[in-house]
Amino acid sequence: MDRQIVKPSILPGFMELLPADQIAFNQMLDTIRTNFERFGFIPLDTPTIEKADVLLAKGGGETEKQVYQFTKGDNDLVLRFDLTVPLARYVAQHFPELAFPFRRYHIGKVFRGERNQKGRFREFYQCDIDIIGANKLSLINDAEIPSIIYATFKGLGFDSFTIRINNRKLLNGFFDSLNIEDRSGVLRTIDKLDKIGTEAVIEELQKLGVSGAAVDRILDFIGIKGSNEAILTSLQKLAIPNPLFNEGLEELAQVIHYIKCFNVPEGNLAIDLTIARGLDYYTGTIYETILNNYPGIGSVCSGGRYDNLAGYYTKQQLPGVGISIGLTRLFYQIQEAKIIELNQASTLAQVLIVPMNTDIEASIAVANRLREAGIVAELYFEETKLDKKISYANKLGIPFVIFLGEDELQSGLLSLKEMATGEQSRMDVEGIIAKIKS
Amino acid sequence: MDRQIVKPSILPGFMELLPADQIAFNQMLDTIRTNFERFGFIPLDTPTIEKADVLLAKGGGETEKQVYQFTKGDNDLVLRFDLTVPLARYVAQHFPELAFPFRRYHIGKVFRGERNQKGRFREFYQCDIDIIGANKLSLINDAEIPSIIYATFKGLGFDSFTIRINNRKLLNGFFDSLNIEDRSGVLRTIDKLDKIGTEAVIEELQKLGVSGAAVDRILDFIGIKGSNEAILTSLQKLAIPNPLFNEGLEELAQVIHYIKCFNVPEGNLAIDLTIARGLDYYTGTIYETILNNYPGIGSVCSGGRYDNLAGYYTKQQLPGVGISIGLTRLFYQIQEAKIIELNQASTLAQVLIVPMNTDIEASIAVANRLREAGIVAELYFEETKLDKKISYANKLGIPFVIFLGEDELQSGLLSLKEMATGEQSRMDVEGIIAKIKS
Repeated sequence: MDRQIVKPSILPGFMELLPADQIAFNQMLDTIRTNFERFGFIPLDTPTIEKADVLLAKGGGETEKQVYQFTKGDNDLVLRFDLTVPLARYVAQHFPELAFPFRRYHIGKVFRGERNQKGRFREFYQCDIDIIGANKLSLINDAEIPSIIYATFKGLGFDSFTIRINNRKLLNGFFDSLNIEDRSGVLRTIDKLDKIGTEAVIEELQKLGVSGAAVDRILDFIGIKGSNEAILTSLQKLAIPNPLFNEGLEELAQVIHYIKCFNVPEGNLAIDLTIARGLDYYTGTIYETILNNYPGIGSVCSGGRYDNLAGYYTKQQLPGVGISIGLTRLFYQIQEAKIIELNQASTLAQVLIVPMNTDIEASIAVANRLREAGIVAELYFEETKLDKKISYANKLGIPFVIFLGEDELQSGLLSLKEMATGEQSRMDVEGIIAKIKS
Repeated sequence: MDRQIVKPSILPGFMELLPADQIAFNQMLDTIRTNFERFGFIPLDTPTIEKADVLLAKGGGETEKQVYQFTKGDNDLVLRFDLTVPLARYVAQHFPELAFPFRRYHIGKVFRGERNQKGRFREFYQCDIDIIGANKLSLINDAEIPSIIYATFKGLGFDSFTIRINNRKLLNGFFDSLNIEDRSGVLRTIDKLDKIGTEAVIEELQKLGVSGAAVDRILDFIGIKGSNEAILTSLQKLAIPNPLFNEGLEELAQVIHYIKCFNVPEGNLAIDLTIARGLDYYTGTIYETILNNYPGIGSVCSGGRYDNLAGYYTKQQLPGVGISIGLTRLFYQIQEAKIIELNQASTLAQVLIVPMNTDIEASIAVANRLREAGIVAELYFEETKLDKKISYANKLGIPFVIFLGEDELQSGLLSLKEMATGEQSRMDVEGIIAKIKS
């Protein structure tokens, strides 16, 4: 009976990893999680599938086009496309049962039916933290966030990265002072500075109806460089008589001061007046994180302060501040550009126990003892030639192999082979435990 | 401007937890993962969304009715409904790149549009391990599996549970010896013994056309009780001249022997000739796990041996053995029946640092030091009355609170309050670290 074979494959735009890469990916997830937890964030998990009318309450824009939406029975369903809207829904729904400030992290998959292109994924992990206040939220939370970014990216193995920081009030106040109405258009244009260059930015600003004098002032403004202190001083010297601008400036100065208290090195932190982060969501501090040697990748961790998380779900004012790491895309970039060294082993096992003939019971006893001692031990039961057993350990990258044969059983001393050196020695189980642990 | 408020809610049949329960749930996930890893299983992650024609290659039955299937652009998509079919697809697709036996675990959400009823979930976590061989797989793997079940359920806090074990060859050989053709029908009927009782089973067997003599022999067979050794002896005494029966009996005896080598206590292991596990998938050893004091819940961890994992995707023969824990449903049952004690705290924080007035910088310095020492520390920045700050720690269940005021700053000794006892003492940061860690 010949069965019809279906060619096994997955959809384009979905990431699936081989064991070594999967282990590396999970190690990164663990590092991110550990750091989020160390700062007192609690885990949250929300359904992958939600009601379409609830999750798309805000509606419009790119989101609705990209979302995976479908029906089942009478229900109109969507797959979550980010972790922020589910957070808003969760906080609004469970408000009386939560304590505020509500510090949560959420690591999970989100889904966007984007146009298929290299390095873009339709299903990807987001790693988010947010701190949500009831009615108000201290500005010092905005200063703690960069210390979490710093700890996390150091933990992931990155050395040369910059947390860029800006403030939307500062930007908006500045544009107000120039009587610019199309803030969004100007922000979008400024955001493109790195990509299209100064001349093209000038041209675009003029097209937006910005006067020549205003264009000059905008260029002067985004041209302010130097140390964080120097930038703050330059901004003060502008002496712009706009309350929003000055509120933003005061916030930025305070946030920078407290970030230093959190021990973020000056070299990993830069005020950058050109970053704007989206258009209508953020209302204060904004963050981007750039890998200094790979600016083309763009921001690998972004976020900011918002006035109201859940206006579509509750009249309760819920200000917050948060960041997001898109790990699937970041992992792809790391692999493409070999940015950091990733795990190479296709196993978590520290040792493989190989019965030579039929010494199964003795081998199992050794495995029991090693596992009891917290060592990840694997047994190789298959009947095959010795070199095939060793090549199994080699292929997976298991660092140690224990052999059990007649000699070993009689002497009570096991043969331990260190795969990296090929060195082989005889010792008892406790000796092996000490050796592997060292 | 009054914005339209959408009532925040989720779909029925989806689990969403409050922080304390979420922490408890994640602790269980971690325990399961740690145990799976300790036995040398490697992690796998596959896409949530797959091609419908690939994932539904087997087709038919209940699966197709329950699956979440939809289109996006030209693609016909499904959400994965278990972790076994994606494993089959993965192993077939990546066969040349994997080392065998391939020991993988997969913990992830699966989706089934089941009819809505209490305790049934449409989105739930499965925690699976499988060991897949290329062409062949040693029977001793079947004996290692119960030791993983045992370690995992002990680790989860369960004491009184029984791993039930049986063998499909034994069952099928027995039915063959009675010339029963409708094995499936008989298996289904026997499976119902606990629910419907002996009389009803007899009636059903007769309806299936089983002769009176055969019914008697079936009842004798499933009536075999006693210690595992006694059951094996009784089975041998039956002296049934059927090769499949005797192959199954030999396998069962060997598996029981080796399970004991893996230190699974006799009291947690029982041969049970009435368990059958599904109909066409398993071909040898089968497992169920019962909480002794909650038999009504049914099996909380099931699985078995199969001859061929991926016949729909490859001609490569892939025998395997595996188990699955449905954690979402198990968690629901634990909550309903208070089976084990779950975490009560709504936080992972070990200590809350509370600046009394404006001693923000000093408080941050304390947090930096505690976090450096590996303590999960949280800062309370909000300006509010002291009793509200303390009630925040209380509501979350943070065990320690540090106060920093004028006195503390001048003396260098911080006030530490132990929330459970109300006891308050003065000590320096290093003293606090030692206290919290102890």
